[in-house]
Amino acid sequence: MPQGALARRIDQGTGRAAADLVIRNARLLNTATGTLDRGDIAICGDVVVGTHDTYRGRREIDAAGRIVAPGFIDTHLHIESSLVLPGEFEQGVLPRGTTTAICDPHEIANVLGVPGIRYFLEASTSLAMTLRVNLSSCVPATELETSGARLEADDLLPLRAHPAALGLAEVMNFPGVLANDPALLAKLQAFADVHIDGHAPLLHGPALNGYLAAGIRTDHECTEFDEAREKLAKGMVVLMREGSIAKNVATLAPLLTDLTWPRIAFCTDDRNPLEIVEEGHVDAAIRIAIAAGVPPMAAYRAASLGAAMAFGLRDRGLVAPGYRADLVLLDDLGEVAVAEVICGGRLVEPELFTGRQHPTAVGYGSVRRATVSAEELAPGVPRGDTPVIGARPLALITDHLAWGALDQPPLKLAVLERHGRNGNIGRGWVAGFGPLRGAIASSIGHDSHNLIVAGDAEGDMAVAVNHLIGLQGGVVVVQDGRVLADLPLPVAGLMSDRSFSFVEARLRPLRTAAAACGCILGEPLLQLAFLPLPVIPHLKLTDRGYVAAGPDGLRLLPG
Amino acid sequence: MPQGALARRIDQGTGRAAADLVIRNARLLNTATGTLDRGDIAICGDVVVGTHDTYRGRREIDAAGRIVAPGFIDTHLHIESSLVLPGEFEQGVLPRGTTTAICDPHEIANVLGVPGIRYFLEASTSLAMTLRVNLSSCVPATELETSGARLEADDLLPLRAHPAALGLAEVMNFPGVLANDPALLAKLQAFADVHIDGHAPLLHGPALNGYLAAGIRTDHECTEFDEAREKLAKGMVVLMREGSIAKNVATLAPLLTDLTWPRIAFCTDDRNPLEIVEEGHVDAAIRIAIAAGVPPMAAYRAASLGAAMAFGLRDRGLVAPGYRADLVLLDDLGEVAVAEVICGGRLVEPELFTGRQHPTAVGYGSVRRATVSAEELAPGVPRGDTPVIGARPLALITDHLAWGALDQPPLKLAVLERHGRNGNIGRGWVAGFGPLRGAIASSIGHDSHNLIVAGDAEGDMAVAVNHLIGLQGGVVVVQDGRVLADLPLPVAGLMSDRSFSFVEARLRPLRTAAAACGCILGEPLLQLAFLPLPVIPHLKLTDRGYVAAGPDGLRLLPG
Repeated sequence: MPQGALARRIDQGTGRAAADLVIRNARLLNTATGTLDRGDIAICGDVVVGTHDTYRGRREIDAAGRIVAPGFIDTHLHIESSLVLPGEFEQGVLPRGTTTAICDPHEIANVLGVPGIRYFLEASTSLAMTLRVNLSSCVPATELETSGARLEADDLLPLRAHPAALGLAEVMNFPGVLANDPALLAKLQAFADVHIDGHAPLLHGPALNGYLAAGIRTDHECTEFDEAREKLAKGMVVLMREGSIAKNVATLAPLLTDLTWPRIAFCTDDRNPLEIVEEGHVDAAIRIAIAAGVPPMAAYRAASLGAAMAFGLRDRGLVAPGYRADLVLLDDLGEVAVAEVICGGRLVEPELFTGRQHPTAVGYGSVRRATVSAEELAPGVPRGDTPVIGARPLALITDHLAWGALDQPPLKLAVLERHGRNGNIGRGWVAGFGPLRGAIASSIGHDSHNLIVAGDAEGDMAVAVNHLIGLQGGVVVVQDGRVLADLPLPVAGLMSDRSFSFVEARLRPLRTAAAACGCILGEPLLQLAFLPLPVIPHLKLTDRGYVAAGPDGLRLLPG
Repeated sequence: MPQGALARRIDQGTGRAAADLVIRNARLLNTATGTLDRGDIAICGDVVVGTHDTYRGRREIDAAGRIVAPGFIDTHLHIESSLVLPGEFEQGVLPRGTTTAICDPHEIANVLGVPGIRYFLEASTSLAMTLRVNLSSCVPATELETSGARLEADDLLPLRAHPAALGLAEVMNFPGVLANDPALLAKLQAFADVHIDGHAPLLHGPALNGYLAAGIRTDHECTEFDEAREKLAKGMVVLMREGSIAKNVATLAPLLTDLTWPRIAFCTDDRNPLEIVEEGHVDAAIRIAIAAGVPPMAAYRAASLGAAMAFGLRDRGLVAPGYRADLVLLDDLGEVAVAEVICGGRLVEPELFTGRQHPTAVGYGSVRRATVSAEELAPGVPRGDTPVIGARPLALITDHLAWGALDQPPLKLAVLERHGRNGNIGRGWVAGFGPLRGAIASSIGHDSHNLIVAGDAEGDMAVAVNHLIGLQGGVVVVQDGRVLADLPLPVAGLMSDRSFSFVEARLRPLRTAAAACGCILGEPLLQLAFLPLPVIPHLKLTDRGYVAAGPDGLRLLPG
């Protein structure tokens, strides 16, 4: 910031110079006091310089009595789950009021390592919204799968100095923490003086205390009210999550009150483009919270100032002089009806996104494996005690079932290593997708992002896998040997390099095709993508086979 | 922190190893939830590692049902005002529950410059309590006085990297900010990415907005309720002050509620050793707040978590696993009856302070001026419109009076430059001290710390000044040419190098002697010390003469 910029702010704040932008007739949602206040809002450059007074501006907007809230902060997400690059992601979420996002480039890091993280750090520099990056702590997430990269403390340390870097991302390997894993402890030490993000589903009691004693501060994995209450009481900032699969806000809502909001924030974690368009982003989380009984002021405070304080974002979370001019103009408080968004002092409109030079995407050509035959995907003949993954609708947590106890036959499931390392194929079964005829496959398979395919017939499954290899990543629905719908994801096999609307348009036929094949899940491809994720209980499938997760840690099942 | 220390924390937090220290039968004052919780508190080294559960410890303390609150944070003070060195200061305040202090070494910096600030930074390293240092922003505070040093942005920048450095200290030259003073703007720019502390008495409306637009975040100068309400609403964190002179908590108390505590904290600013012993420190501020109607939980939250969040102190403010083990054991919540204090996991007892090597104090021999004659101190013959400073009991703000309007004759007043620069003597009058016969003098004279003396007769005044020159700093009461009581302050003319109890013991006779001479103020030497401070309205005296302060800035009166 040149000294002239500071002088301009002072000149405009005192009112002796016209402000760059003035919002008139607004009701200011004051997160400092919990009140709705009157007065103009004066903006100089990207900073608010005046409130609670009358200003004249070189440009003026009549808010017509609308409420002006601070921009919403998504405290934890993987942009990769939006299936688009950061420059497109912001075009989807900025109009919904999300002006700051704290991402963990965990997915691309598992495929590409440091260059993947560097890509997101650099991508932040050409965005209108603020993108901060927590550095991925658990690559690979476990030793029970084959990832494309491995990151140690020494790999992460050089990235700390980037202005967009914030801290250490979700420490999901909580069994490793509790077992004093030396490589993990080295990472915790290397980031002891900055933010360390948590991820500890269902951890409680003294084990949770041990995890927190390591300096971990937040958790976005609460799925049960009592779990969240314990974590809050033990000092964690609870990041209430409303993703496309994991929808926790309604359950946790009673915890968010006028007394607790400074220790609560919202996050989306993994949210797909269709849902962003149809339901919204952080605005959807606020809306659900209010509908579930959260006092509106507490919800807005958590979404802005609570989040900013939890992550040390000193320049935002309030509409106040000296704070960043990230503003959401609302037609209705309870409905979170976003009429207009101002990001860094600029109106969010299509022109904001034109003429920008984004860094070139990395990770083309990342699906490195030979095509497969149908025979290679066949699981063994099941016995009564053969394990079957039980997928729950809209949940990351699965059930550990047995073949013999099922009413209907499950689908066949395979995970195929695709980083050119060993060609592993893990085989198993999954229930809960319904009577699907055909196959669905994806190169998104948390967290190592091997290829995953589910289907009733090995032939369709092989067609689907080989189609993805040809695309160098993507998602596909196949029936009777024919591709019904697909979406190429050539960037690390995780993201499209096309527009947000292109991806959105291609996802609808995919959803329809899966349903036409008999799938009963609303988000079959997203649910498929989480079936290889061992750090979420209870039974998962990786390229090395079944992994059972429980309170005593993770173990590979013989098979 | 060695990796072994992290592993020990995890081992003790999970309970698989005995904790270093366990507090049993405690009620945990939970600043995250606003509740009183049950369960043991386990501590490993200097960090809490377990709560809400049962632990065994190598050492165990029975809290006998006492309440355990997080250590109190003094968010703004000048340790110099305690008249002792940091190693003695903490022996006065730690037993009262103040485990963290954020100081501005503004006084010593005005005498010595950078070496004075460096002394406090280094002093922090040998303390049991946490001392963080905001770097003095306004040395000299104004151009209307002669200080011992001048600090520009380039002087401060090299100090930023010290681990104890926090940000830029109180920007008291608010007229300079509003006038775009280039040297001041350079400092604001140099610290734009860290904390910038404010000081803006009675500033309001668009002028306050302009000041805040420069990135200034806090204010400890609120003396009126409406002033504090406006500052809070405009995003400032209000630091409610309970000093020895400026006692603002009771007035501001209605602002501190369960809804606002995250944006409020406490500070002492300037508090003398007698008052620390007699009334307490931050504990006194909390007590006064509660007595004035603040909900106790809101007061404790402000004093710990509110303060920590405002200053980005990520490791404290809660009694929770992973947070620093700064604990206050209370017999009574409302009375703030401190029974025991644990600082960084260690019981505060006399042994905590023994055998330590503190850095050598700086600033001996700092009173550099020739002795004076009585004649040199004589003010001119007063006229009816001759200005007189009106001292208000227990207030920094003074009144601008005229000689002709007084009921009783005022005292003579002189400020003598003592940094060896020009030998200036400013002369004037002060009312409000009562019918004092004799003289009181001090080498503490905010902010340039020239010598200041008040009395009814130039002869006693000269004896007092010359005594201070002989002592190389201190405070003294003289009558009939005889020293009735004194306290040497040889460290920069501001601090004793003796013990806290020595200083405390010498202050009582000084207070008695001043009263015996007819002084009606409870803290005459403290009030004297603030009479040269031009940045507080309305009329002050410096070595250059009278300074009138008003909303349009400061001006030297023709003299």
